[in-house]
Amino acid sequence: MNVPEILPIADAALAARLQQRIDRKTKPLGALGRLEALALQLGLVQRTEAPVLTAPQLVVFAADHGLARRGVSAYPQDVTWQMVENMLAGGAAVSVFARQAGLPVTLVDAGVAHDFAPREGLLLRKIAAGTADASQGPAMTAAQCEAALAAGAEVVRSLPGNVLLLGEMGIGNTSSAALLLARLAGVPLEAAVGRGTGLDAAGVVRKRALLAQVLERHAALRAPADLLAALGGFEIAMLAGAMLQAAHERRVIVVDGFIVAAAALAARALRPAVRDYCVFSHRGAEAGHAALLRTLQAQPLLDLEMRLGEGSAAALAWPLVQAAAGMLNEMASFESAGVSDREGR
Amino acid sequence: MNVPEILPIADAALAARLQQRIDRKTKPLGALGRLEALALQLGLVQRTEAPVLTAPQLVVFAADHGLARRGVSAYPQDVTWQMVENMLAGGAAVSVFARQAGLPVTLVDAGVAHDFAPREGLLLRKIAAGTADASQGPAMTAAQCEAALAAGAEVVRSLPGNVLLLGEMGIGNTSSAALLLARLAGVPLEAAVGRGTGLDAAGVVRKRALLAQVLERHAALRAPADLLAALGGFEIAMLAGAMLQAAHERRVIVVDGFIVAAAALAARALRPAVRDYCVFSHRGAEAGHAALLRTLQAQPLLDLEMRLGEGSAAALAWPLVQAAAGMLNEMASFESAGVSDREGR
Repeated sequence: MNVPEILPIADAALAARLQQRIDRKTKPLGALGRLEALALQLGLVQRTEAPVLTAPQLVVFAADHGLARRGVSAYPQDVTWQMVENMLAGGAAVSVFARQAGLPVTLVDAGVAHDFAPREGLLLRKIAAGTADASQGPAMTAAQCEAALAAGAEVVRSLPGNVLLLGEMGIGNTSSAALLLARLAGVPLEAAVGRGTGLDAAGVVRKRALLAQVLERHAALRAPADLLAALGGFEIAMLAGAMLQAAHERRVIVVDGFIVAAAALAARALRPAVRDYCVFSHRGAEAGHAALLRTLQAQPLLDLEMRLGEGSAAALAWPLVQAAAGMLNEMASFESAGVSDREGR
Repeated sequence: MNVPEILPIADAALAARLQQRIDRKTKPLGALGRLEALALQLGLVQRTEAPVLTAPQLVVFAADHGLARRGVSAYPQDVTWQMVENMLAGGAAVSVFARQAGLPVTLVDAGVAHDFAPREGLLLRKIAAGTADASQGPAMTAAQCEAALAAGAEVVRSLPGNVLLLGEMGIGNTSSAALLLARLAGVPLEAAVGRGTGLDAAGVVRKRALLAQVLERHAALRAPADLLAALGGFEIAMLAGAMLQAAHERRVIVVDGFIVAAAALAARALRPAVRDYCVFSHRGAEAGHAALLRTLQAQPLLDLEMRLGEGSAAALAWPLVQAAAGMLNEMASFESAGVSDREGR
């Protein structure tokens, strides 16, 4: 598998200079809380004391899942392509929030069971019309998984800017994400499996039982790439490929919700340093999301009980990322503003 | 005291229509979490199924506090006027975040111990050059407090739009806020008093002891207006007056941090229905903030360990308020987008 090199962002000297710069801004020490840690991360990603965020791109990868035929979702599989059309028409939540935030949206057909008419804003990168049923065999062949990783990387290379905001659409994909969380992080299915788009309690019990069978079937697998192929989805593999490429290019990666975070977990299993480039937009209401974020040692920016995906939370978190950079670049220092510092500083 | 009439926003029929509209949007039921409750609130405030947010105004009220001379802050009192100058020059955190969010900022000198040169964006509404020392007597006379409430209302009447985002600046004002929290909500000083701009542990102990004396001195007072005059500040009273006027006009009020929330507590004590119009931007790191929000039954939008004030969190939360309105007005419904709903709906 051709995975690009990714350098860790750690740089003690630069971190010290960034912290000093943050501490001289006209505010009490630490008063901007988590935005300060975010500003530090942005500086380290861009290897500068003055990170500038240019041409941010919101990219939504969509695909269908063989498991969806097993009743793991409250919605029919057709909703995947219908929601892609809704996003292209500007009517989905991510469309609205991205428009408000001034973010261009690119849709990627990673493997939807539907033939889309080509058009502006839609990249046709279909690996196949949905994955195979992971309860019967691997969801993807090794070649398909590799092709999806490569396609994700290629999508990133084709886009300008130094920030990538990632979303997804795929009926059934909380199942894939829960399976990856279980195998790549050892989180038990009881904690990893949730209601998805809205299963009732009995539906969650059925989903969990089915996913236990899937895990059992693939219990012999160990390599992250094999697990991604067996349990993942085309959109998840492309997301992982996109993240690896973005981190290789030192772009900032804004992770949406449970599914995109699961893709980050898979990407991290292939290249641990990719984690350094990720900003986590929110903690959602899907059951496994909190455990997944803990595994990734991620402190998300928002906590609004959302569970929509699409990139909706990434778009909502974007102004906070901008604010962190703006703090570094536009706020006055005690010296430049002529503001008295506290005694002893 | 001339406090305007404020109607509660409750309207069961409209709430049902709003909820139906939210539930038909192309997303799983409830998937936008707290943004859905916010959208409902916006609709009720504006008495419409399609709330439109126009000409939002960020207003920062600044004043000095007699208590500041008693060492309740880590910063000297001059920082109040210096930060007002910094805000006018565009270098404060609130300046940067408001600029990014497209929010015009109005500064109000409610009672800073400094003579400002008049200029664009600054309203000179000084009641006096700082309040009196509340440990020696009431911070304000009844007439001063009434004048501050009236000036806050007048500022709102002079500004366009239907959204008011409120911030503040005033060295020493976490003391006033803690005192109001203690007396208006019965929260003990142990929980209400925090580090403010950055006191150390010994400083917090001294601050708490001093504030206990202040409470003792004014223990006989009962009426909310008397407590506001004795314990508040000019910026806090003007904030309360601004909120009462804004709610009277059915504007949406975006509350910043601990201080502005304390002003909301005071305003609520005068007119309970004002609470219905408030959107709480964040839960901060200042000790009493969480208890204050619980008292107000407020679920804030952000939780980023910030403790800066100024209106910084209100500016950061603004895109989320816009997103809630955008969801109602711009998102497609299952019907309009031709997306299949789940079975049984």
